[in-house]
Amino acid sequence: MNYLKLTFDKLEVGEINELVAHESCGAISLFVGTTRDNFDGKTVVLLQYEAYEAMALKTMNHICDEMRLRWPDIKHIGIHHRLGMVPVKEASVVIAVSSPHRNASLEAVHFAIDELKKSVPVWKKEQYADGEGCSEWKENRECTWSKSYKDSHIL
Amino acid sequence: MNYLKLTFDKLEVGEINELVAHESCGAISLFVGTTRDNFDGKTVVLLQYEAYEAMALKTMNHICDEMRLRWPDIKHIGIHHRLGMVPVKEASVVIAVSSPHRNASLEAVHFAIDELKKSVPVWKKEQYADGEGCSEWKENRECTWSKSYKDSHIL
Repeated sequence: MNYLKLTFDKLEVGEINELVAHESCGAISLFVGTTRDNFDGKTVVLLQYEAYEAMALKTMNHICDEMRLRWPDIKHIGIHHRLGMVPVKEASVVIAVSSPHRNASLEAVHFAIDELKKSVPVWKKEQYADGEGCSEWKENRECTWSKSYKDSHIL
Repeated sequence: MNYLKLTFDKLEVGEINELVAHESCGAISLFVGTTRDNFDGKTVVLLQYEAYEAMALKTMNHICDEMRLRWPDIKHIGIHHRLGMVPVKEASVVIAVSSPHRNASLEAVHFAIDELKKSVPVWKKEQYADGEGCSEWKENRECTWSKSYKDSHIL
């Protein structure tokens, strides 16, 4: 099963771990992306996330298909992405994968976060500490989709 | 900080994630080893774990040192190992690593569970479903320490 979600609620790592746990599996690997208190030398107070939701879920589904092709032993996949304001130390994304043996889940989680950064249409902007204002909405630095696609479809 | 623990209590993945979270970090990677419902074709009801506790903690500390040498950006490491009875689907070990950027934590967690399986003196035995009994206490199959060491020190 693929458990995919975009939500304005706080992400609970323990719950997402429970979601993918399965009696046939000896391994769960997780990646948690959190808001860091600095960016380009400036103090960050929180990050804001926006998504093109239908397309984001479609792309997340596609990443799951690709993971299951590469690691057929995978049992469950959870990818939860938070939208809106995410304060420092809190999670913006949690990826969890269960598998009978550990290598599949470890490798698949690494693959999933790399792909997610490259291909899922989620934008973020930094809210800096007093006097430093906000950054512009921006795609992930690793993003590979074309700017023209975004211009014509979303922004 | 290294948060190392051997405990007879249930491991809470959410709590261990919180333990290693840090405002300077954008990434937390976790590995959760869980009890699988089968082993060598037999139905497993639970696993039992025993450790040579002082030596296990010393070895876990050594693994942390090695991780910090290889990935100097690592902020916090948590390694919690459960002892006693661990039912199917529950965690016997949780490893969590925080780092400013994701590659360090992803690679370090993979390294840590591989090293832990090889070198930490923890034994387990399977409790099988009715009529199938118990296995013998045994070291991890990947274990590299010598049988003679174990014979003379523990069993």
